[in-house]
Amino acid sequence: MGVRTALTDLFGVEHPIVLAPMGGVAGGELAAAVSDAGGLGLLGAGGGDVDWLGREIDILKARTEKPWGIGLLAWAVEAAVLEWVIAQRPSVIVLSFGDPAPFASTVRDAGIPLAIQVTTLDDARQALDLGADVVVAQGSEAGGHGEGRGTLPFVPAVVDIAGATPVLAAGGIANGRGLAAALVLGAAGAMIGTRFEATPEALLSADERAAIVAAGAADTTRDRILDLAQDSPWPHRFTARTLRNRFTDTWHEREDALRFDTTAKEEFAAGVDRGDMDYLPIWAGEAVDLIADAEPASALVARIADEAVQALHRVTSGTPPA
Amino acid sequence: MGVRTALTDLFGVEHPIVLAPMGGVAGGELAAAVSDAGGLGLLGAGGGDVDWLGREIDILKARTEKPWGIGLLAWAVEAAVLEWVIAQRPSVIVLSFGDPAPFASTVRDAGIPLAIQVTTLDDARQALDLGADVVVAQGSEAGGHGEGRGTLPFVPAVVDIAGATPVLAAGGIANGRGLAAALVLGAAGAMIGTRFEATPEALLSADERAAIVAAGAADTTRDRILDLAQDSPWPHRFTARTLRNRFTDTWHEREDALRFDTTAKEEFAAGVDRGDMDYLPIWAGEAVDLIADAEPASALVARIADEAVQALHRVTSGTPPA
Repeated sequence: MGVRTALTDLFGVEHPIVLAPMGGVAGGELAAAVSDAGGLGLLGAGGGDVDWLGREIDILKARTEKPWGIGLLAWAVEAAVLEWVIAQRPSVIVLSFGDPAPFASTVRDAGIPLAIQVTTLDDARQALDLGADVVVAQGSEAGGHGEGRGTLPFVPAVVDIAGATPVLAAGGIANGRGLAAALVLGAAGAMIGTRFEATPEALLSADERAAIVAAGAADTTRDRILDLAQDSPWPHRFTARTLRNRFTDTWHEREDALRFDTTAKEEFAAGVDRGDMDYLPIWAGEAVDLIADAEPASALVARIADEAVQALHRVTSGTPPA
Repeated sequence: MGVRTALTDLFGVEHPIVLAPMGGVAGGELAAAVSDAGGLGLLGAGGGDVDWLGREIDILKARTEKPWGIGLLAWAVEAAVLEWVIAQRPSVIVLSFGDPAPFASTVRDAGIPLAIQVTTLDDARQALDLGADVVVAQGSEAGGHGEGRGTLPFVPAVVDIAGATPVLAAGGIANGRGLAAALVLGAAGAMIGTRFEATPEALLSADERAAIVAAGAADTTRDRILDLAQDSPWPHRFTARTLRNRFTDTWHEREDALRFDTTAKEEFAAGVDRGDMDYLPIWAGEAVDLIADAEPASALVARIADEAVQALHRVTSGTPPA
């Protein structure tokens, strides 16, 4: 009953649904659940913490024999880590945020499909020039780091330059209607983060999960506040969408002041240390409007795929949307 | 061959394609072209310039006998103007930007369908409480004034609370793939602005039209610069997406300084007066990435509708996107 696309063909998976490699949140249990349900699970390895990755890969392999992959931050990854990751033989390596040029040939020479996530049309052109096997077009609606393009017009613009290279839509997709929209826009599938973040399989505390389920998009903000508060080395061009909290509200549109405020940074660090929700960074996208429960990822994949087929059928059968 | 939706049923039109009522740009010729081709043309009356409207309605009526409507700015319209507009018996009145509450019952009591454009979920709830016949969910990708939500996740969130009330998707839609995406998200159609702005029928200079065709989304910016430069009375919550030019680049992220800079405002007024493209406000959305020519509106409507059907068929037939 799945929708067959260039993505499902490339990876031999049932559904064109890819787990976003959310750093530290998309671990072995979540990636295995998505893969085992017919999607493509990705481990969110950040810059490449090999200890964390080794442990999560063990968990993953104990739970599924289906294809899975690893996502890495291009601005943070080191060559030795990439070699270690390649040695794990994932079905795909995703490079996001930063210049993928130094790593593209290494991945390709190892015979591992390379996906490159992009947030601008210029970066999409570079990804294609580097021979990416998949381009992920991420819109500003996404949770976590990103840039300013809206997913709806960005995806078809990337598709128009991608030729036969499959494009994934990312940012703002949480259900089958969103997946169906991605597909008719010309994408070969959807990369989904926040919706899977709010599952029991994600590496998140119960309080954090409950906050995502309770939140609406108006409770999110895209800024540099949480990066500035911890002197994060993230490249300046990327902002992050998170749930608003007392700390982000305090510093909203006052980023320049926060940059040099040592007292505020100490206050932030102490708040995070004690697990205070007024300070804790919770990455979450605008799709929180569409998340009303903490349904397990293992069931979500099939439901999203079914809903996508239903959404397409509802329109093509000419019946007015309910 | 059209897609039948709650919108096409409500207005008796062939295609679920609505011309955005772009103030001063969507005049009689453009609205008539869209309506005559089977869409729903709307005149962009701004706050309600009755002289302009009277002239453009005459032009429109000389060219089509199909349904058409009028869009008004809720923050700017006066009761007497609304009565005059109602007396023209449009098929729909669209209220955008600002509180529609003072006007909703007047429009409804006159027996004219009321559409309310919204940019937040709270405003969507208010529009439904006011008994709107159509809710337009506008995303940040749109050209001209708007707010911060992304169209792709915003539309299904509005659909989920709208019950049987038809929802239109607005912001970032320029072709049939975008219309198809709107429909599978649950919308009953798409409101399209920038794509129609770049047609010969729009009230735009040749230079302005050429600038839109040449631009990419990275050439747009959403801010308050052009409103501040002319001491515009637009409500502060709404920013505007325009083509970047020398003036907007100069004041990017320096809006507080511009607010009180009399010299800059005089420089801006003089630049606009002489038609200098370094200063002229050209409202345009992220969909400019998808606009490569100035195809006539009369042909566009049918092409967008056909492409939408093709996009849906391409996915449902299971063939990978090319």
